[in-house]
Amino acid sequence: MTRQQLIARIRNTGSYLCVGLDSEKAKLPRHLLSHPDAGDIVYEFNRQIIDATKDYCVAYKINTAFYEADGVKGWETLERTVNYIPSTHFKIADAKRGDIGNTSSQYARAFFETLNFDAVTVAPYMGEDSVKPFLEYKDKWTILLGLTSNPGSRDFELQPAGNGLLYEKVLTTAAGWGSPDNLMYVVGATQAAEFTRIRSLTPDHFYLVPGVGAQGGSLEAISRNAMNKDVGLLVNASRAVIYASAGEDFAQAAGSVAAEYHREMQQYLTILR
Amino acid sequence: MTRQQLIARIRNTGSYLCVGLDSEKAKLPRHLLSHPDAGDIVYEFNRQIIDATKDYCVAYKINTAFYEADGVKGWETLERTVNYIPSTHFKIADAKRGDIGNTSSQYARAFFETLNFDAVTVAPYMGEDSVKPFLEYKDKWTILLGLTSNPGSRDFELQPAGNGLLYEKVLTTAAGWGSPDNLMYVVGATQAAEFTRIRSLTPDHFYLVPGVGAQGGSLEAISRNAMNKDVGLLVNASRAVIYASAGEDFAQAAGSVAAEYHREMQQYLTILR
Repeated sequence: MTRQQLIARIRNTGSYLCVGLDSEKAKLPRHLLSHPDAGDIVYEFNRQIIDATKDYCVAYKINTAFYEADGVKGWETLERTVNYIPSTHFKIADAKRGDIGNTSSQYARAFFETLNFDAVTVAPYMGEDSVKPFLEYKDKWTILLGLTSNPGSRDFELQPAGNGLLYEKVLTTAAGWGSPDNLMYVVGATQAAEFTRIRSLTPDHFYLVPGVGAQGGSLEAISRNAMNKDVGLLVNASRAVIYASAGEDFAQAAGSVAAEYHREMQQYLTILR
Repeated sequence: MTRQQLIARIRNTGSYLCVGLDSEKAKLPRHLLSHPDAGDIVYEFNRQIIDATKDYCVAYKINTAFYEADGVKGWETLERTVNYIPSTHFKIADAKRGDIGNTSSQYARAFFETLNFDAVTVAPYMGEDSVKPFLEYKDKWTILLGLTSNPGSRDFELQPAGNGLLYEKVLTTAAGWGSPDNLMYVVGATQAAEFTRIRSLTPDHFYLVPGVGAQGGSLEAISRNAMNKDVGLLVNASRAVIYASAGEDFAQAAGSVAAEYHREMQQYLTILR
């Protein structure tokens, strides 16, 4: 999906919501165990969540860890899930990969060719040749870790490095490796205080913003501080949406939470642009 | 595998060689295509490589990227391969994972429980809570990226951060999260000039050292500059071993290269300790 297609999709839908499918077997509604497709209840769960939320979001993010934890079976579920996501939606593999060049090329193949994701999250520590293989794919996106939402962001990301902080160096250095047409950054919603500074460093890039909901980030603060003329935001909610209810109404409840985010986003799109 | 078991294994074998199974279908010997197990020639290749090299090495490192590139099928091959590695050998998932706490817990489950690896490589960028879930497993190892072997190490790892360089900050900060009994570091063989400094910062830790062979690192320089009283090194060779020959003698050729490393290591173990 190109940048223009993504922006058009956001404008037409009135949403910049990404739903995160961090689906963990132990947390799924119990009644799914007796479903005819009980051999793969995670897929069945994802399928119903997608059906219930797709009108309110523009992207889905699959957190690969939750699938790898179940080995081959989990990887099958991952593949079935990504294939089920409508082609209208932007598909993100939240995989945090990154290795020396010839290895990153294999990861890029895994997520962009074998699984046909639109984007993959990538860790910056190993530098340019670990990121470039992802950027070489036409109409695919690299979403590089900038400033993450977790407490550990204080250990290195927010530490002084050269003339600024490490995450600032990552943002500005990596901006030279790709363009706003194929490179986004992960910026955690819990880092609202930093958003204005981040937007000034990278005015045109999209940000994937996790940390709304279970992690406590504010959608309003993010939107006020970081929206640009092309919106420039994909705000992710995972647990707050998919675990909205543990009962038989789980999909309906997920849909309601997604719809609520959608309404709030429609407001910000009107007020802030 | 505990530290004492690993050290005993190195002493008894006279080797600190790790063989890296970066097995890529496109590079495998052509005659394997007609093998009865041609449905999974990568596994058949790995099986023969393991048989031919196991007397000369103490560890195997599976680079997950090369398996993920083939999707579900590749993940099956990965599982079959790790199960085939003898229990005498230290099994490393070279996966470069790392995410917020609840996600890293899932990665730890994937590699330590579902696949029963002894160790997994982890990226440090996201800080303590992204690394801790791996360290919580008894008798399992976290191998944190310190200073890597690739050109991109110059972009961030070798940049000033606080009073030293970023990779130094990573080494010393992370040393407080685990102990030399459950934490190793990745230090690239191409960084021989830095090894003395690195050893002074982390005197007791093991290092996983990639970059010998195809990437040009010197086994002698690493051994001279970084061996400690417990050896403290696992030196990895991947392409130099597994692609030693593209002919029908590929396994024998891999065994010969591994035996050559073994002989050289036996020498250094005598001279340097």
